[in-house]
Amino acid sequence: MASSSSLSLHLLLLFAILAILATLIESKPTFQLPGASFYKSSFKQAKAPKPKIPYTAHYFPQVLDHFTFHPKSSKIFYQKYLINSHYWHKGGPIFVYTGNEGHIEWFAANTGFLLDIAPKFKALLVFIEHRFYGESMPFGKDSYKSAESLGYLNSQQALADYAVLIRSLKHNLSSESSPVVVFGGSYGGMLASWFRLKYPHIAIGALASSAPILQFDTITPWSSFHDGVSQDFKDASMNCYEVIKGSWAELDALSVQKEGLAELSKIFRTCKDLHSADSALDWLWEAFVYTAMVNYPTEANFMKPLPAYPVQQMCKIIDGMPPETTKLRRAIAGASLYYNYSQTEKCFEIEHGADVHVLSGWNWQACTEMIMPMTCSNKSMFPPSGFDYKDVEVECKKKYGVMPRPHWITTEFVGNRIELALKRFGSNIIFSNGMQDPWSRGGVLKNISSSIIALVTKKGAHHVDFRFETKDDPDWLVELRRQEVDIIQKWIHEYYADVRQG
Amino acid sequence: MASSSSLSLHLLLLFAILAILATLIESKPTFQLPGASFYKSSFKQAKAPKPKIPYTAHYFPQVLDHFTFHPKSSKIFYQKYLINSHYWHKGGPIFVYTGNEGHIEWFAANTGFLLDIAPKFKALLVFIEHRFYGESMPFGKDSYKSAESLGYLNSQQALADYAVLIRSLKHNLSSESSPVVVFGGSYGGMLASWFRLKYPHIAIGALASSAPILQFDTITPWSSFHDGVSQDFKDASMNCYEVIKGSWAELDALSVQKEGLAELSKIFRTCKDLHSADSALDWLWEAFVYTAMVNYPTEANFMKPLPAYPVQQMCKIIDGMPPETTKLRRAIAGASLYYNYSQTEKCFEIEHGADVHVLSGWNWQACTEMIMPMTCSNKSMFPPSGFDYKDVEVECKKKYGVMPRPHWITTEFVGNRIELALKRFGSNIIFSNGMQDPWSRGGVLKNISSSIIALVTKKGAHHVDFRFETKDDPDWLVELRRQEVDIIQKWIHEYYADVRQG
Repeated sequence: MASSSSLSLHLLLLFAILAILATLIESKPTFQLPGASFYKSSFKQAKAPKPKIPYTAHYFPQVLDHFTFHPKSSKIFYQKYLINSHYWHKGGPIFVYTGNEGHIEWFAANTGFLLDIAPKFKALLVFIEHRFYGESMPFGKDSYKSAESLGYLNSQQALADYAVLIRSLKHNLSSESSPVVVFGGSYGGMLASWFRLKYPHIAIGALASSAPILQFDTITPWSSFHDGVSQDFKDASMNCYEVIKGSWAELDALSVQKEGLAELSKIFRTCKDLHSADSALDWLWEAFVYTAMVNYPTEANFMKPLPAYPVQQMCKIIDGMPPETTKLRRAIAGASLYYNYSQTEKCFEIEHGADVHVLSGWNWQACTEMIMPMTCSNKSMFPPSGFDYKDVEVECKKKYGVMPRPHWITTEFVGNRIELALKRFGSNIIFSNGMQDPWSRGGVLKNISSSIIALVTKKGAHHVDFRFETKDDPDWLVELRRQEVDIIQKWIHEYYADVRQG
Repeated sequence: MASSSSLSLHLLLLFAILAILATLIESKPTFQLPGASFYKSSFKQAKAPKPKIPYTAHYFPQVLDHFTFHPKSSKIFYQKYLINSHYWHKGGPIFVYTGNEGHIEWFAANTGFLLDIAPKFKALLVFIEHRFYGESMPFGKDSYKSAESLGYLNSQQALADYAVLIRSLKHNLSSESSPVVVFGGSYGGMLASWFRLKYPHIAIGALASSAPILQFDTITPWSSFHDGVSQDFKDASMNCYEVIKGSWAELDALSVQKEGLAELSKIFRTCKDLHSADSALDWLWEAFVYTAMVNYPTEANFMKPLPAYPVQQMCKIIDGMPPETTKLRRAIAGASLYYNYSQTEKCFEIEHGADVHVLSGWNWQACTEMIMPMTCSNKSMFPPSGFDYKDVEVECKKKYGVMPRPHWITTEFVGNRIELALKRFGSNIIFSNGMQDPWSRGGVLKNISSSIIALVTKKGAHHVDFRFETKDDPDWLVELRRQEVDIIQKWIHEYYADVRQG
């Protein structure tokens, strides 16, 4: 069973991995499936030390169940949140990060944007941990034990947590009139935008970065995520794309040969002999998907240390190998950039010992509400695979004893025909997306109204705007952040003007 | 235990009675309290025959718990809804009444407005019953048995029910593009306005009639409800107001006399001897409160048959009695108009046999989420009484084993500083209120934006606009309904224009 700390450091990575998994692992592939080791590779990082951050930790007595009133629903758990009041002037704005699936410290460390802009706004910074992640475990070590406890883990309860906590915090700070702006990236960005829509009386605006709120039902074509990854590689080099696309057949052919696994172990430079070719496939797949997601314009260490524009670097490696090199060997060399940019790995731990059927928070969410159908089309560089809701049902029923509610998110939250629904409703939301990020395909990419704005950068990757500014940031990134700051400034000015008009 | 049918016919009356009760029964009065018989008088009406209405009944398999994902949360219950498709052209608008606390037939029968306007709009009419009322009992006869079952009764679950049902209905009718407008009166109006705010992707607008969404926390002064009742009587006649205000002391004085109860039984014309003066007090209190609520401009039979402008008629009786008549006797004569306008009662059943601690749906809601603090100030014509949250806690803990969440509604829904919150957010809501109705004091009485509109009529009473039109309707009522129709027409035109623009 996964302990709370084993869920540590994978916010968006975990989000990405598991959201993909939630679909792919259940789908009917025509080739091979990225299998369960996809899980394990993300869990491996759980033991990384907590990042150092300029925040103080606090714990809020939170109600277990906001939406039923059983006697046991009033059970209290302690929800962690982080505060930085260094720049705050009392009565000034409060910037709240709506935490996603992981330790809140990780989100704080990877959302330097808020620290960068806090002095300008004299803002209080608050990062709230999502229930059932990090230390915010309603049932302690038993939180993931079964559907009985996990039942309380979902996005609506999380949003209500944020509402209750923010209201209480403002009251305790005697700052009821302070405007609150919510921020979130990836799943946290979905939560931020939904929070603005459901709790407009608590947050005056939301900046949702790389929030794929349209990645549900049939709103976004199911193949778009992997098409997005593939496009990044195509844009870097058509040859690179073709090499990767062709590598799977070579992997498949090798795997069915006598001594195939031994040969694969050798060319993948595994630390231990492979038991299955699936793990090798997953290892490649993961490298390509994540490198596309974090195709940042500067050197970064988001999931792993990587150079600036890592997709381009990866393709340089693939394209630059001696002419006789097979596609598979080229793909492996490319993927090795992702796993070994720091050149510290002598061999690769491709297969992990963890239990495949480990219970985790995001797995649960992916089995109940967060059903994001994904396929791989022929146009992608991945092995074709399909998606069938029935498979998700069978798998989730087996794993947790619950039935997925695949259409619930689009009933509870706006999604279908979002332009029509929000053209004359709501305000003050920024959806920012970078087109390098495959999740952008499920995001809001066009302005919906004069104050529900899409900021799209061609070269941006997964919530690149939320990273600390660096002196190497390209102009388009500086400009993106400047726009965001200007818009948030406008919201706050309008709010104070409205208060004065009273 | 209250059976489902015993909850029949008291929508707003029940709403009013119990909402008042929820506060008063727990408060610390300085005089006497309207006691538990307040409950019983409403239950008495449960056996009235169901009204005949031009709707067909249907039953929708609804999910028990939308916001947790326990295996048992997926339990299905059958939610009743009514359909009238006589005027509908496929693809045309769908008008949905968001049912409140009672049998849905009752709301259909008392919302003739929708039938009146359906032909003009070629609208489909749908009345959805609120969970745990009427026939929509998730646990059958055991639905009210304990907090274990009642836990699923609350406004957020009800709103989610409406969202799920409407979406499914539109799908089954192949009318996904039909605009949906939601309507509701009283608590149903609160639900309608909240639905528009929480589910803008499902309803393009809401008409919330007499919806006291601001009757929570400290948004509205706690004394305003009874001040509102008193104002109606003052406006009719200062003498009438003074008589009623003075009658309680006489009642009190009589009740402590030897043979006082016998004397009270006589002058109240009770069918059986009174056991407590409290019941007599409640009987008067109820008559004044309800007559104010239904101070309609035409003869009506909402709760009971009453003449046009019944407050004025009541005061005529009170003012017109012989000079030597005591205040108490005048008050009784006035109240008798409410109980006996049809002149069929030979005596009054003032005390009822029902168990005071009967469990009912609204009592539960009033003990969990719907905490509406109410007091009686010295300015009102009622005996002064206070309000203390602690008393509610003690009482509800004792009755249901649950703790009230008195600030939850204002966390979940907009309320505090509503103008500020909605000035730049949301659209397409009409809040209509009649100032004769004491609930109007907790309603939205000023325009919030160009499309969140308050329609206020000085002479209107509790959702008078929702009643069938009659040839005796005064001009202001005709005009009110015309405005509502025009605004809804505008929403629908805008919606179709937006669809065409794509």
